[in-house]
Amino acid sequence: MTINFRFVVFQLGLLMLVLSLAMGAIALWSWYDWYRNPGLGESRAIESMGIATVLGLVIGLGLWGVGRRERDAAPGRREALLLVAVTWVLGAAFAALPYHLWWWTGGDASHPFASFTACYFEAMSGLTTTGATVLSNIAELPDGLLLWRATTHWLGGLGIVVLFVAVLPTLGVGGKKLFHTEAPGPQQTGVRPRIAEAARFLWLIYLAITLAAILLLRVAGMNWFDSVCHSFAMVSTGGLSTRDASIGHYDSWVIDVICIVFMLLAGVNFALYFQAARGRWGSVWKDVELRIYLILKVMVILAVAVNIYGETIITTAGRAVQAGVLQALQYASFQTVALHTGTGYATADYEPWPFVSRALLIGLMFIGGCAGSTAGGVKVIRFWIALKVIYTSLEKTFRPQVVRPLQVGRGVVDDDLKLAAVTYFLLILLLFSLGAVLIAIAEAESLHIDFMTAMSASISTLCNVGPGLGAVGPTDNYGWFNDPSLAVMSLLMLLGRLEVFVVVVLLSPRFWRSE
Amino acid sequence: MTINFRFVVFQLGLLMLVLSLAMGAIALWSWYDWYRNPGLGESRAIESMGIATVLGLVIGLGLWGVGRRERDAAPGRREALLLVAVTWVLGAAFAALPYHLWWWTGGDASHPFASFTACYFEAMSGLTTTGATVLSNIAELPDGLLLWRATTHWLGGLGIVVLFVAVLPTLGVGGKKLFHTEAPGPQQTGVRPRIAEAARFLWLIYLAITLAAILLLRVAGMNWFDSVCHSFAMVSTGGLSTRDASIGHYDSWVIDVICIVFMLLAGVNFALYFQAARGRWGSVWKDVELRIYLILKVMVILAVAVNIYGETIITTAGRAVQAGVLQALQYASFQTVALHTGTGYATADYEPWPFVSRALLIGLMFIGGCAGSTAGGVKVIRFWIALKVIYTSLEKTFRPQVVRPLQVGRGVVDDDLKLAAVTYFLLILLLFSLGAVLIAIAEAESLHIDFMTAMSASISTLCNVGPGLGAVGPTDNYGWFNDPSLAVMSLLMLLGRLEVFVVVVLLSPRFWRSE
Repeated sequence: MTINFRFVVFQLGLLMLVLSLAMGAIALWSWYDWYRNPGLGESRAIESMGIATVLGLVIGLGLWGVGRRERDAAPGRREALLLVAVTWVLGAAFAALPYHLWWWTGGDASHPFASFTACYFEAMSGLTTTGATVLSNIAELPDGLLLWRATTHWLGGLGIVVLFVAVLPTLGVGGKKLFHTEAPGPQQTGVRPRIAEAARFLWLIYLAITLAAILLLRVAGMNWFDSVCHSFAMVSTGGLSTRDASIGHYDSWVIDVICIVFMLLAGVNFALYFQAARGRWGSVWKDVELRIYLILKVMVILAVAVNIYGETIITTAGRAVQAGVLQALQYASFQTVALHTGTGYATADYEPWPFVSRALLIGLMFIGGCAGSTAGGVKVIRFWIALKVIYTSLEKTFRPQVVRPLQVGRGVVDDDLKLAAVTYFLLILLLFSLGAVLIAIAEAESLHIDFMTAMSASISTLCNVGPGLGAVGPTDNYGWFNDPSLAVMSLLMLLGRLEVFVVVVLLSPRFWRSE
Repeated sequence: MTINFRFVVFQLGLLMLVLSLAMGAIALWSWYDWYRNPGLGESRAIESMGIATVLGLVIGLGLWGVGRRERDAAPGRREALLLVAVTWVLGAAFAALPYHLWWWTGGDASHPFASFTACYFEAMSGLTTTGATVLSNIAELPDGLLLWRATTHWLGGLGIVVLFVAVLPTLGVGGKKLFHTEAPGPQQTGVRPRIAEAARFLWLIYLAITLAAILLLRVAGMNWFDSVCHSFAMVSTGGLSTRDASIGHYDSWVIDVICIVFMLLAGVNFALYFQAARGRWGSVWKDVELRIYLILKVMVILAVAVNIYGETIITTAGRAVQAGVLQALQYASFQTVALHTGTGYATADYEPWPFVSRALLIGLMFIGGCAGSTAGGVKVIRFWIALKVIYTSLEKTFRPQVVRPLQVGRGVVDDDLKLAAVTYFLLILLLFSLGAVLIAIAEAESLHIDFMTAMSASISTLCNVGPGLGAVGPTDNYGWFNDPSLAVMSLLMLLGRLEVFVVVVLLSPRFWRSE
């Protein structure tokens, strides 16, 4: 069978229409906003988003028209993989348009958005829910563009959840077996209705969590605009903020606690919310990945808290805090949860923290949240399987005749899944090294670059975290990188977000051959 | 069955006697040397080696006596693993004795050998054929101790080859299937005669290569003493030198070429020498690992040569060389071969070389030489299998129904071996990270330490290379590390040399339980 390109084009058209309508809605809101408080920046934002919206609608309708004959086709694996990769690559180009147009209609030559690559980086960072930014002065950006940035997070996160919990497992692609929970819906029906039903449920859950976050942040003292933007970025474990000092701007432990809870929720396998919604709390509680996810967090939080207790913590807003027990716990838990889930929000500058804390936080970045969440990293379940595989291979050395099944919870992990988990881990480590080397080569002339910076920029983008260490720490940004390294990091974000294979298969000649 | 401890003790006694007799012979040679040219240092070296020899003989005879009832037992897997681990741990302690005694009989308080941990590090570096040294002023060491250092390399290398080519495969432990070539000897006979016959052959080959190296180096202009020490260190891919500037001291392209050839030979699977000795050149030539080993080398040599062409190369002896085509090739091939095989000799300070060259050289350190050689790293064959596993998992993403056997040469790699290779790779990367973190923590107060140094010290010891980058570069040494980090690195050398599992299984409670 050849690949059904028309089907891919049709779906792509639909997605472009969704993106354009979202942007159009924000443009309209900006217009209303500008009507109340006229200001030059805002009017340029409306123009740029308006142009981009029209362009997007035209392209979307065109693609829809070309592909509409195949609108009712059943998607195969290869169509799904192709659609996914193209969606993120082109989606980021479209999402970058208003940034660049905004600069083009009167921006300063030294503004990061003068480079389209930087705009693409910012958009890819949004859609992959990474949260790395090229902007040093976030607050000067008009509200319309800030809301668009947050919206790319929200849409990207929704896309990832639907993709990894509903679409790919139903099609039997890749990490199917990582999701113990089957997608809901009658098993007898076709592929499309099942995907559609699962997607509807996920979207409702996602929306509900977002609304809850907005309300709580508003009650805790944020204004409506910031509540919306931060909630969008939290439920998608994105991390782009409307404030230069990130969440540290508010300097409020209530807001910190709310953020911790929602980041935690966003890092959980969304398939578990199916179970919860059906009242199956038992199987939620027995989920091995969830337990390890929480245990890991508690352990690292305690270790970091002990490690920074008594030290002077500098918040991202620049305030010095003497860390008593409560302060140490507050800042340790916020930073641990923010980096483990790949959100990347910051309340404190963790760069001066003791080495052990930084090493633990970097380690958690690699591990990441649960499979089927918006979090980054190799995912807790793969990490756990890899550890178990290493452990059992020890025993094999001296007792090769003993064959012991590898269990995760009550399920037995088969050989394929074992190999897949360990291979993925290795692949991420290789990509991380390759990324660091490429960045270091591209930036050879830069004063900012050192080995630490190149490595943490690579891991932070590949694991969709956002901030790192060195010159990409919590109080720095990615604006000083040159275009080649921004391109490398955009690719790393894409690879990490789509779990590598989805992107790389497209480069394989066998993928394109008719079966 | 319980572990036959007496058998282990008996074998350990024999090995102690071998080590002691080797040390005794060197002490006698030193005495003769001192007789011709009396000097204070040499007489202290004779004393210290004499005392250590007597001690070793007494302990060796004691162990031999305790265990002799089980002298004719057939070794099992667990006895072999236990013996191997204990041999290297205790062997290094014994090998460290003369260093520390030499200092104790009148050394300067600031000398590195004042710390027994540093002496242990030096001895472990010798026996694991790593070649990292704590000494900054090597030439001041008396000849007797220099020869003992080289001898630890030679004995350690011989031990590794016999262990991984003859003993472990015959017992069916660990990486059996990595060695395509079966050990020689009639298959019908018992385990011990087969091991003994294979060991005899390996020892002859090893000796022959060593003698050839000694003669050629002597002819090329080295004195006898240096020829012997450097040959001992080359055939074992060790890398400890008698000169502060390493091989760069001689500044001779003839010596460079000889060293390149012998380092290359030492990095080849010694099982292939069986084949060659039987005239089966066809199967040597068709060996996939050998081919990749050579292709990798040629590719990196060319890349590094292009990269350093036209630059000014500073030799380890401090001479500035303008790199034309020949010079670039000369220094690139020496450094590539020296680091890839884990010998760690240097003719040039590669630290100022362009980033790409350094990254390639670090990459080769990780990969290492062939299985069944004295080289370090994860071994070419594992690297190749891991690459193939990654490639086939790509195809699985979009065509899960296709099952394609993974081939290396004509052999099919089974699932167990695939998993083992990838797991080992991952384990080495995890140990490398853990090692770097521990070193950084131990050295937190040191001025020398930066992330680069901690990382390259970790990889260089774990992969049994010797020098690294940063403050452990080719012109630096390990003398400035404190005792805790030297202990960590001694453990890393041991883990890397015995391919991790051999050491770690001893920590598993199941290992000790009766079957």
